[in-house]
Amino acid sequence: MKATAAQPRVLKHQVVRAHVESLLDTLTEGDPVPAERELATRFDVSRETVRAALRELLVAGRIERRGRGTVVARPKVVQPLILGSYTEAALAAGLSVGRELVGWRNLSADEALAADLALEPGAPVLELERVLLVDGVRVGLERTRLPTERFAGLDEHFDHTSSLYAAIRSRGIEFARAVERIEAAMPDAREAALLDADPRTPMLLLSRVSYDRDGIPIEHRRSLYRGDRMAFVATVAS
Amino acid sequence: MKATAAQPRVLKHQVVRAHVESLLDTLTEGDPVPAERELATRFDVSRETVRAALRELLVAGRIERRGRGTVVARPKVVQPLILGSYTEAALAAGLSVGRELVGWRNLSADEALAADLALEPGAPVLELERVLLVDGVRVGLERTRLPTERFAGLDEHFDHTSSLYAAIRSRGIEFARAVERIEAAMPDAREAALLDADPRTPMLLLSRVSYDRDGIPIEHRRSLYRGDRMAFVATVAS
Repeated sequence: MKATAAQPRVLKHQVVRAHVESLLDTLTEGDPVPAERELATRFDVSRETVRAALRELLVAGRIERRGRGTVVARPKVVQPLILGSYTEAALAAGLSVGRELVGWRNLSADEALAADLALEPGAPVLELERVLLVDGVRVGLERTRLPTERFAGLDEHFDHTSSLYAAIRSRGIEFARAVERIEAAMPDAREAALLDADPRTPMLLLSRVSYDRDGIPIEHRRSLYRGDRMAFVATVAS
Repeated sequence: MKATAAQPRVLKHQVVRAHVESLLDTLTEGDPVPAERELATRFDVSRETVRAALRELLVAGRIERRGRGTVVARPKVVQPLILGSYTEAALAAGLSVGRELVGWRNLSADEALAADLALEPGAPVLELERVLLVDGVRVGLERTRLPTERFAGLDEHFDHTSSLYAAIRSRGIEFARAVERIEAAMPDAREAALLDADPRTPMLLLSRVSYDRDGIPIEHRRSLYRGDRMAFVATVAS
């Protein structure tokens, strides 16, 4: 049986990782993580092995770099999977939220985007890309595509530090429903740089189309969230 | 502005990746991907650059290894994020589903698990671990923990190729609600081996506690799904 064959494959750095995790359990958020050399001596392994273990703990969000040192990470930001603004949800949870503009672009809808937004292929689309910061940490890269015709002038009047959903609602449009696709993905170099993340950090990729009360698509949104800093919760009922 | 500094960082293999993706768009599922050497000549780059591009396409689920070759991957399996059995959902979607037993274990609940299952710390817990196969591909590793007292004898009578949810319901227990936490994570060596996956494949990690009609926790489940083979969809309404 395949499962049996797989059983014994525990790598040395993963044993060290488990030891370091037990050690982290005894510390509090923000405490310094012992130096590589010290951990190598303590667990009687090479510094390379310690480094591999720490890299895994870093991309898993158990430890984080702060200034020149490495410290016990704060817990992940947990967001409800809701129809609505993450900005508003985070603010409601007492977190400090920031937005940094990456850019506005004018596009023509390709076939896939046209189908998602119920437009003709080639129709003009307005694209907004922003970085979401929670408590000063760059946690997400959000790209929203909107039919230009419906949202004419939005790029001129919108305050990019505020909630886009609020701006849309202020035009009399009501969000009724959204279909969200949830995937795991790796960032490319640009995305990792914009999120200030190690390029080996796994990401949550959320792709959403939102609809208004008449079933007309409002937006297509692609959001990439750092797996080491963000988690989502959904409550499902029968 | 940080964003501007990040803008120009497009790596050579990511340019090649984009070219190869356009090429893949012209092919169909199961078609062979041109050889590394051929792609290196076509795009006038080194084989190492092609290899890096192909590795990204592999962990992204655009291409897959089949036998000795590499082919255009089939689309990801898309599962609704529901309260219920993924086995039953996949069967309803016309997919062929298999289960492979990794093992049963008897545990004592630690503090976190005891809290999740509303048990006393140290209470006995039954753990079932299985691999989920969809259309013959090992897509998920699911670990369920159940209070032994409520599920005495389950490990002796349960057919591990069948739906665990059906077996629980046959004991007169009704699933009313579940809280699902959604994260991105990297597999460890054992998990990657059990899932037959490249260890660089990002994973979706779903952690769930299900409750019955009386609000009593039924199970704690930790499921790891291959990001290159699985996606989830959720419909959210206001």
